Amino acid sequence: MKFLEDILAINSVSGDELSVSQFILNIISERKSNWKVTPNVFFGENFHNCILLKFGNPRTAVFAHMDTIGFMTRYENQLITVGGPELIDGTFLVGNDSLGPVRCKLIVDDDHIYHDFPRAIDRGTYLSFEQNIRIDNQFIQGAYLDNRLGLYNAIEICQTLEDGWVVFTTYEEHGGGSMPFLLDFIMKEGPVKQALISDITWVTSGVVHNGGVAISIRDKFIPRRTFINKVIALAKKSGIDYQLEVEDAGGSDGREIQFSRHLIDWCFVGAPEDNVHSPNEKVALHDLECMIEMYQYLMAHL
Amino acid sequence: MKFLEDILAINSVSGDELSVSQFILNIISERKSNWKVTPNVFFGENFHNCILLKFGNPRTAVFAHMDTIGFMTRYENQLITVGGPELIDGTFLVGNDSLGPVRCKLIVDDDHIYHDFPRAIDRGTYLSFEQNIRIDNQFIQGAYLDNRLGLYNAIEICQTLEDGWVVFTTYEEHGGGSMPFLLDFIMKEGPVKQALISDITWVTSGVVHNGGVAISIRDKFIPRRTFINKVIALAKKSGIDYQLEVEDAGGSDGREIQFSRHLIDWCFVGAPEDNVHSPNEKVALHDLECMIEMYQYLMAHL
Amino acid sequence: MKFLEDILAINSVSGDELSVSQFILNIISERKSNWKVTPNVFFGENFHNCILLKFGNPRTAVFAHMDTIGFMTRYENQLITVGGPELIDGTFLVGNDSLGPVRCKLIVDDDHIYHDFPRAIDRGTYLSFEQNIRIDNQFIQGAYLDNRLGLYNAIEICQTLEDGWVVFTTYEEHGGGSMPFLLDFIMKEGPVKQALISDITWVTSGVVHNGGVAISIRDKFIPRRTFINKVIALAKKSGIDYQLEVEDAGGSDGREIQFSRHLIDWCFVGAPEDNVHSPNEKVALHDLECMIEMYQYLMAHL
Repeated sequence: MKFLEDILAINSVSGDELSVSQFILNIISERKSNWKVTPNVFFGENFHNCILLKFGNPRTAVFAHMDTIGFMTRYENQLITVGGPELIDGTFLVGNDSLGPVRCKLIVDDDHIYHDFPRAIDRGTYLSFEQNIRIDNQFIQGAYLDNRLGLYNAIEICQTLEDGWVVFTTYEEHGGGSMPFLLDFIMKEGPVKQALISDITWVTSGVVHNGGVAISIRDKFIPRRTFINKVIALAKKSGIDYQLEVEDAGGSDGREIQFSRHLIDWCFVGAPEDNVHSPNEKVALHDLECMIEMYQYLMAHL
Repeated sequence: MKFLEDILAINSVSGDELSVSQFILNIISERKSNWKVTPNVFFGENFHNCILLKFGNPRTAVFAHMDTIGFMTRYENQLITVGGPELIDGTFLVGNDSLGPVRCKLIVDDDHIYHDFPRAIDRGTYLSFEQNIRIDNQFIQGAYLDNRLGLYNAIEICQTLEDGWVVFTTYEEHGGGSMPFLLDFIMKEGPVKQALISDITWVTSGVVHNGGVAISIRDKFIPRRTFINKVIALAKKSGIDYQLEVEDAGGSDGREIQFSRHLIDWCFVGAPEDNVHSPNEKVALHDLECMIEMYQYLMAHL
Repeated sequence: MKFLEDILAINSVSGDELSVSQFILNIISERKSNWKVTPNVFFGENFHNCILLKFGNPRTAVFAHMDTIGFMTRYENQLITVGGPELIDGTFLVGNDSLGPVRCKLIVDDDHIYHDFPRAIDRGTYLSFEQNIRIDNQFIQGAYLDNRLGLYNAIEICQTLEDGWVVFTTYEEHGGGSMPFLLDFIMKEGPVKQALISDITWVTSGVVHNGGVAISIRDKFIPRRTFINKVIALAKKSGIDYQLEVEDAGGSDGREIQFSRHLIDWCFVGAPEDNVHSPNEKVALHDLECMIEMYQYLMAHL
């Protein structure tokens, strides 16, 4: 899990995914010679900060978003949010501006948020939760498990993947925007009819820690039932622990597949976390293991 | 109206349109030999559950959505909505899960909704309003006139249609998603510049029962005025009863035409109903007749 | 500024951009022989009311929206809004219906708005703020500076432009809709990787009159940081007055670039105004001059 700890230390708030993208490219070039199948790797300025890996003859694409929620400095000591971070007074935030590194506390005052850094911070500076990773026998806890664990899963399954796309996306936490291009590219370069969203969901009254990977029947958006039934039937057959999620809120890269100009079935499959979008996101290691196993099974059998 | 009564009995909440799609395909194959022009029929797994009929050399496309609003079971006895159904305590809901048929009452309790079925229902089971069709000399009343009447209109006009697309869409009640694909397909296979939305609208202070078919100048979204003026000029000339609608809320498949990558003019033309999205939707038969006549006229003259 | 005063007198609420589009086409045909480079001009029924000018070998596209916010008549003496106009009781509104010119007052009554015209106005008639332009040495004030000044800027920079697209769009104030088509057309006819949004923004606690043109780091949506850094670096180098904007609300044609199927970097660059979406929008002439100079500089150096 060295790779996971390293990637958890990188800041990459939506719109500023360059460094996490470069980190993932390094991992890929280090590892790909050991993978069962060597993928075609697509990246670079024409792909903004996105990365696509094409293995064999894809039937299914896996999408994992690289960006995180966070904050941006406005005027004076005001902050505004990027995506939907939990606003907990006193939370430590970190970043960099033209004068150097920044570490400050989040001040929550009714409808407004501020920082307490002694000097002005450059307008438009990104701030992230200060990282504090805690791992024991049962759980991993820290900031940005959403979606570092989704990236971890996406990289892990590359080891044995024979056919499929593994795609690293941007902007998911702030409305999206890279998916329409990525889907067009995929449909031209190696078309698929199916997609899995490698992302982290919520612990709720029906989805619990250590219950296995969550297969989402719906969130705010509703995938086509025919495909969901197919995924659930395979999950049953796999023998891997899973739990079914039914929510009426929340979204993922699946939303942009739904509303794209391509008819691609999609399903969100991911471990659930507690303390969503806070510095203390918490995931059961068992659920993460089930997530990786389930992706290996589904990518082989879908 | 046998066909209308049959189709009103089918459940097809957004995301689960398979059975209504198969029903419509049957109707088409039964009837098409009697139609003035035999259309090309596009459907199947590559179209998910959508159906497209191409008659002659299309100038205009008609869109009718096959899905309905409804409910889905969550955890324990909780329900969540699909689209925006009216929440009336005590309404009967029906569906099927792995243990068999389900019939239960909707319980509305402040912000939450439940069912009263004596056993747990499988997570993610779709529930629909129980159907109760009432037809007299003046009105038709029941669940899901929106958009069974739009489908009825779309099928009826096939009898004499010479040039045009008739398209059966999915997901309209829950944010859409099939239109971008369908529009791309149409623009490749038989491009058009104009579209009519065959759907049911609202009785309001300005749009009344027995006032004729409603031609919508706008809902939440605003079609291009040049085209609306053209439609209204033809409607005047047709001698068929119509009324002009101006709303600032509501949407239809027209929304997705507006925001698509194609410049296709669109206009919503449909009979108005009372008791929208309830089990007691009510439409005047005169307005439905005007809708069918107006589509016949517009498809010939636009 | 004769051209600016003339264009400020034209009504063109979203959906009804025909007359402003014709006015701009006239300006283009009058002036283009005096421009450094003669552009290809794309317009006409296939472009709805949009206009595209292609100069040389474009690297960057400029987008300026032609539509404005306004009102539409509903039933009886009710009004509904187009886009988000300021609702100030007693504001004079003007328009035309089948019976002739209309001039009336806006009546604001809690959640509803009305007009006081003595006769009924045709359903669906567009109404605009009555224009009242005031120009002194320092400021220009009137209705619809947003986005007549953006159009003015776009036309002015044509004089010396060598390479680039200048594009006049519709529907920006009411959710958009022409951009997906325009972007597809551009990417086929003369692809670009960069876009500037020629529009008017807000005076706030951090963006002030006479502070120079605003370069927006973000509004509700967030452009890619790599590109924003490039724009700011050039702005610094240019020596032209500018100020950095950071907002969490508001949108522009940039939103539709962000969510399009093309990876095109975008940045909003425009003068700030006070009294937004009212008949008294106010912009400092210095900021407008900086806007024009900055566009000339950026289009040459980006």
